[in-house]
Amino acid sequence: MDKFMQAAVEEAKKGLSEEGIPIGSVLIHKGKIIGRGHNRRVQNGSTILHGEMDALENAGRHPSVFYRECVLYTTLSPCPMCSGAILLYGIPQVIIGENKNFMGEEELLRSRGVKVEVIQDPSCIEMMSCFIKIHPELWDEDIGL
Amino acid sequence: MDKFMQAAVEEAKKGLSEEGIPIGSVLIHKGKIIGRGHNRRVQNGSTILHGEMDALENAGRHPSVFYRECVLYTTLSPCPMCSGAILLYGIPQVIIGENKNFMGEEELLRSRGVKVEVIQDPSCIEMMSCFIKIHPELWDEDIGL
Repeated sequence: MDKFMQAAVEEAKKGLSEEGIPIGSVLIHKGKIIGRGHNRRVQNGSTILHGEMDALENAGRHPSVFYRECVLYTTLSPCPMCSGAILLYGIPQVIIGENKNFMGEEELLRSRGVKVEVIQDPSCIEMMSCFIKIHPELWDEDIGL
Repeated sequence: MDKFMQAAVEEAKKGLSEEGIPIGSVLIHKGKIIGRGHNRRVQNGSTILHGEMDALENAGRHPSVFYRECVLYTTLSPCPMCSGAILLYGIPQVIIGENKNFMGEEELLRSRGVKVEVIQDPSCIEMMSCFIKIHPELWDEDIGL
């Protein structure tokens, strides 16, 4: 696993240690992590701080040209909200830990020109599948099921 | 203008009074406002708190069945991120103040079964067009242009 996906996994694990939903993300600009985040539904009572959104928020304000040079890493396939944020800011590339536990809007992203790569990392798959088994109600709430 | 769009406009004006981007939103559940919000890019340095996102966040956590009974009001056509949030939570109806200053993902929403209504309210149109003329750089940043 490359160092950026490893950083996203560390974020997911941080979420788990806070009794939250273990999904993490990092935003990369020119080879450097400029935003880290993890799902904060449980911790902050947040309905919008998915991992990717938290990473975007923590990266702070930037002009659109900046985002055009970014890559977003996320441990799980991005939901419609997070995919929409990727499209809003024109982030050209997304690297996804896995889509076995949840298939997000990868086709929409691709249809709009975003380069989408799915690693299918076994540790990402296991972390999420275990969480869903233990807390199905939290997962359903987070993903609008 | 109906009372809920009026409440969304009040939120937009609150944003303006805080020197922020004047876009407001309210989330309605069974005829009652359960979340109010406005764009907080300037005020909070936020990249994700668009008006609709702020209203969703302020409404707090709910199960998916709750959102299926909601209507979202927003003063401006929802961007990809906010449209994605609407799809994530399965909000079935969106009422939009105007789409003259910005055309969001209305077609995507309709294609996924969301009922979308655009009022083209003159006061919403003027508030936004004046802001864009005065602060084009803020607007471009907010909408990823």
